[in-house]
Amino acid sequence: MSAAAPTIKFLQQPTSQAWVEQALANLDTILLDHSHCERKAAGVALNLMFRYPSSAELVKALTAIAKEELEHFEQVNHILEQRGIPLKALPAPPYGAGLRSQIRPQEPHRMLDSLLVSGLIEARSHERLGLLAAHLDDAQLAKFYRGLMASEARHYGAYWILATTYYPKDEVNARLAELAPIESELLSSLHPEPRIHS
Amino acid sequence: MSAAAPTIKFLQQPTSQAWVEQALANLDTILLDHSHCERKAAGVALNLMFRYPSSAELVKALTAIAKEELEHFEQVNHILEQRGIPLKALPAPPYGAGLRSQIRPQEPHRMLDSLLVSGLIEARSHERLGLLAAHLDDAQLAKFYRGLMASEARHYGAYWILATTYYPKDEVNARLAELAPIESELLSSLHPEPRIHS
Ligand SMILES: [Fe+2]
Ligand SMILES: [Fe+2]
Ligand SMILES: [Fe+2]
Ligand SMILES: [Fe+2]
Repeated sequence: MSAAAPTIKFLQQPTSQAWVEQALANLDTILLDHSHCERKAAGVALNLMFRYPSSAELVKALTAIAKEELEHFEQVNHILEQRGIPLKALPAPPYGAGLRSQIRPQEPHRMLDSLLVSGLIEARSHERLGLLAAHLDDAQLAKFYRGLMASEARHYGAYWILATTYYPKDEVNARLAELAPIESELLSSLHPEPRIHS
Repeated sequence: MSAAAPTIKFLQQPTSQAWVEQALANLDTILLDHSHCERKAAGVALNLMFRYPSSAELVKALTAIAKEELEHFEQVNHILEQRGIPLKALPAPPYGAGLRSQIRPQEPHRMLDSLLVSGLIEARSHERLGLLAAHLDDAQLAKFYRGLMASEARHYGAYWILATTYYPKDEVNARLAELAPIESELLSSLHPEPRIHS
């Protein structure tokens, strides 16, 4: 059963109600995992800037994204501190590695796939932070998630624009049509550990 | 001959006048290399946050530094754009790898050495950006470098504070006394390619 999220073009399947229930029942872990997600999102943007240092549009767009992700990371960590949740490592769910394994290792495929995988992750984050915003009882936290949701939507838009800046639109659409079902499939059975991307 | 920089405790030897002359004579390359330095500084801070995710003070201080370095990166790239200097990769001088080779691979040494190496690089950046500010004819660019100089001083201070947060002060001082001469030695003969750390 779907959690009645707004339709997001990038996503083949909406998130299940089961994920929402798992997340709300394990909010401390979800907040901690969300902190890791923001740091990872900054790391991914920065890695792409290192890999393609002469691609000016990419460098410009990803610098802005990396800065925003660090901003989000700081904000989530502040919430963790307020709630007395200590920072600690958390084993990652299979989602990220599953998606990264789809990135073809040779250029020019590698850059296209990297941009689309990041776009898909941002789109899913946008959807799920929106679900948290819609279902959380805590008004302050719900407001925080509504704010982040808008950023994550801009991020997947930015990755989409970069993909179509460097590749023909047909090729981008064709590759997205292959990757999007894989992204949904990776989330089709709920991971037992509560995570943003479980 | 020294370029009469203000004395910086971290640095064993001041930068030579020869570096200043090389930098001023190759300003476009120095600006481009400076862009890479800012991105690398953000990358180093982020890598340390990935390696020590549960060290709350480290995570907090390095998030702030990574954000500022990305801000600097954006500012330098804006200057490059204004001057029509295209972004492109530049071979790194031996300085960074030379310093990183001094980081002992086992904890708890690894964290201490990583913090001190970053502190030394920030201190040297502070000194050299200050020399650019003092010697540049272009008033706008000199002003820009004066502003950055202050940030880099805060950064080496932050790395110093983190080192003394996690390690006894005697141990930090003893290790700095070993690393600082190596840092100066790496710059004792001018690298033929003009770089911020040549
Ligand atoms: Fe974010
Ligand atoms: Fe994002
Ligand atoms: Fe900087
Ligand atoms: Fe710095």
